Amino acid sequence: MLKLFYAPGSCALASHIALEEAGASYETVRLDFGANEQRKPEYLAVNPKGRVPALATDRGILTETPAILAYVAQSFPAARLAPLDDAFAFGRIQAFNSYLCSTVHVAHAHRLRGYRWVDADDEASIAAMRKKVPQSVGECFDLIEREMFAGPWVMGESYTISDPYLYTVARWLEGDGVDPARFPKVRAHRERMAERPAVKAVLAQQLG
Amino acid sequence: MLKLFYAPGSCALASHIALEEAGASYETVRLDFGANEQRKPEYLAVNPKGRVPALATDRGILTETPAILAYVAQSFPAARLAPLDDAFAFGRIQAFNSYLCSTVHVAHAHRLRGYRWVDADDEASIAAMRKKVPQSVGECFDLIEREMFAGPWVMGESYTISDPYLYTVARWLEGDGVDPARFPKVRAHRERMAERPAVKAVLAQQLG
Repeated sequence: MLKLFYAPGSCALASHIALEEAGASYETVRLDFGANEQRKPEYLAVNPKGRVPALATDRGILTETPAILAYVAQSFPAARLAPLDDAFAFGRIQAFNSYLCSTVHVAHAHRLRGYRWVDADDEASIAAMRKKVPQSVGECFDLIEREMFAGPWVMGESYTISDPYLYTVARWLEGDGVDPARFPKVRAHRERMAERPAVKAVLAQQLG
Repeated sequence: MLKLFYAPGSCALASHIALEEAGASYETVRLDFGANEQRKPEYLAVNPKGRVPALATDRGILTETPAILAYVAQSFPAARLAPLDDAFAFGRIQAFNSYLCSTVHVAHAHRLRGYRWVDADDEASIAAMRKKVPQSVGECFDLIEREMFAGPWVMGESYTISDPYLYTVARWLEGDGVDPARFPKVRAHRERMAERPAVKAVLAQQLG
């Protein structure tokens, strides 16, 4: 059975929602980032990167949100979470998800994980990174709102694996010091997502 | 016809090599980053992110290296650049490519693009970011060498879209202050890649 390793509040929420939407049989393992469980040998044997999400399958482990999302869509085609026989439409989903992981999530990570990119004791630089986050994350969401979001779902009429991923990242806006009211489409999407039974079920499990 | 927008030295090299390996008919448009062409209105109409690569297709534009690579593999199945009917094997490629874009490329970008994550006039923080790059990029390649690289190609016996992407990022090692000799498998892969006719043809065009 599929097994998802996650931590509450992390980007693993996207993969968790996708599994639920797909109707997959899966179990979950919660990691306590507060206790640094993601750096312990037991977990590093699962994912040497020491991050979540990781998805254990009967073939081995998959990591990285865009990869897990596409794997779920391809493994459960009946759920229609991505256009699997249209390379261009699939590519647009991949491009959106890749932007979230390599640019939006990275901008966000400079608020609490600045030590990845400067010396951990360089408090001034770490504070300087944190200070920029409202601007850099805000610019990302400006672009999403203006150029990328089709509506009512990210890609248009069809709900896809890009939707739980945007929802996950958009939940970080307030914490990042960005007012969601600047992005009416993204905010309405967040509310629309929160009404989905799969999302309610996953949040109840992760936050309950 | 497909049209790839690239800049020499950028990660667009990976998509360029993949198009060549696929036997695709394509043309290229070179952007001069020195003249900031990627920020000019003509190019922002192609890619509002102001970055490369971008691939113009008859359906529209695709951006983001992992998305373009998968699109090329799916659009030219005869070239066998990815296992297209095996969601897990495809997922492993996607996971590797996602790691390159969201972690390795990002670590590298802190050498010359620190202004993305702190105020552009904060010279001390930008210098602090630059100083960390040999360590952060080195740790990424430690992980690739130790945990991810199967050999002789990234995924094992079959050449895939992960190979031009690793090659592209590994070409930045010296500039990032990391000695490739620390990573014998990655270094040998780089030499193996440089012998491929497609790679020679693309480099001759980009750097010629």
